[in-house]
Amino acid sequence: MKRSKRLVSMTRYIIEHPYTLISLPFFVEKFGSAKSSISEDLGIIDERFQEEGTGYLASVAGASGGVKYIPAYSQSYGTPFVEQLCEKLSDTGRLLPGGYLFMSDLLGDPRTVNDIGKMFASVFVDREIDAVMTVATKGIPLAYAVAAHLNVPVVIARRDPKVTEGSTVSINYVSGSTRKIQTMVLTKRSLSPGSNVCIIDDFMKAGGTINGMKNLLKEFDAQVAGIGVLAEAEDEEEERVVDDYVSLLRILHADDRTKEIEVEAGNLLGRL
Amino acid sequence: MKRSKRLVSMTRYIIEHPYTLISLPFFVEKFGSAKSSISEDLGIIDERFQEEGTGYLASVAGASGGVKYIPAYSQSYGTPFVEQLCEKLSDTGRLLPGGYLFMSDLLGDPRTVNDIGKMFASVFVDREIDAVMTVATKGIPLAYAVAAHLNVPVVIARRDPKVTEGSTVSINYVSGSTRKIQTMVLTKRSLSPGSNVCIIDDFMKAGGTINGMKNLLKEFDAQVAGIGVLAEAEDEEEERVVDDYVSLLRILHADDRTKEIEVEAGNLLGRL
Repeated sequence: MKRSKRLVSMTRYIIEHPYTLISLPFFVEKFGSAKSSISEDLGIIDERFQEEGTGYLASVAGASGGVKYIPAYSQSYGTPFVEQLCEKLSDTGRLLPGGYLFMSDLLGDPRTVNDIGKMFASVFVDREIDAVMTVATKGIPLAYAVAAHLNVPVVIARRDPKVTEGSTVSINYVSGSTRKIQTMVLTKRSLSPGSNVCIIDDFMKAGGTINGMKNLLKEFDAQVAGIGVLAEAEDEEEERVVDDYVSLLRILHADDRTKEIEVEAGNLLGRL
Repeated sequence: MKRSKRLVSMTRYIIEHPYTLISLPFFVEKFGSAKSSISEDLGIIDERFQEEGTGYLASVAGASGGVKYIPAYSQSYGTPFVEQLCEKLSDTGRLLPGGYLFMSDLLGDPRTVNDIGKMFASVFVDREIDAVMTVATKGIPLAYAVAAHLNVPVVIARRDPKVTEGSTVSINYVSGSTRKIQTMVLTKRSLSPGSNVCIIDDFMKAGGTINGMKNLLKEFDAQVAGIGVLAEAEDEEEERVVDDYVSLLRILHADDRTKEIEVEAGNLLGRL
């Protein structure tokens, strides 16, 4: 096969298999090309990815060696995306009672969600994450997007157990915004002990829900490898109970009575 | 830029922008290359996609013309994937009380979910779909995967309204398996009247939940453009209330007492 066609197929395959060891012989056999040609192709792809700021190919040496695509998006790649998101969220039409913002349209757009996933995956690139965890419902698409770029499974905590999941572990936690005691459950066989878990959610005020997930992870003897929230906002009454997190956006001010809203980039961009 | 590097970037861009008109001048400017070179590149990409069975580039003529990537995966691309899925689901360790199957591990794997999305998007390729709808919680990742390949938004019906969503429309429906009357709500501003909607869910027995979504769509003056379920199973007591659907898998038999399980490909594969 000619190099040009090979590059099309290899690029697709590599992008669709992040954090996956791809051996040279695999491509040699797939395309019936010489090892030296495949090596050169990989060099071209790696160089181009780095120029674009979309990640790089890590070389894995040895007999069972090959390359692994690491999706590590650069700050210059991420900045226009985060700026656009801030602008979209600054629309006063989004204001809902209680200082909430309507975000379902953004969270309902698969491309936006995928781009958000790229950003979080890039920040957690060195954390050796085994799984991404969220709690139903709004965080689910975000968790999948992050997990897709890290090539790890998603585990979803729920507010109520379901018959089709088997036995579960449950905890109680206090939701910061409502001060109500809530329950969170996770299926027993969804997480192995000792897992390194990244927690993802759409929104954080005081952080009660995130804290609930942290406590649930303790029950599974799992470690918190990172916490990412799409948007953080101050809680006027409660102090924040979660500290080491990354946020893509920060809602400084959202008032449906005065129709004022102010959104800026969170701490994530600075860490790319 | 050299053709080889350009092909890497163009392939990525095209794959990440399905059903999106990409004009030739866009690439001409992006890479500082001649229009004729870009044209040739697009020809190479289109040819290779068709050889792989991963779709094609549709040409859009005229002054504002260009190409659109249509992800239409072929039967030969899909068959090994569906066969593997059948094999994985045929594990008797998955049997749960009541003839349910544990599928959370498969539904928790972003790559599997993405591949399932490819299959449904390929079947619905000509349906001019405006949105993908599902009901919380299990269908959400599948709905996003389908929607990503169709480049349309996801709308999620819920069992209970949430404060952060604004005003909602609700319906009552009878769940086939439990015979209980349940409620389903959808945020008013999540769907425009007249939308062509594809319904996606993980599991269907009698079809009560899918029927509920169909009724909810009527309230929004929206049309059902297609129904896709990951797995269908017979309901011993209820007759099916939904007929025109595609299924990726069919559970013929699942009995946790006799430890018997039989899974085969659904009707989707034959329609690729």
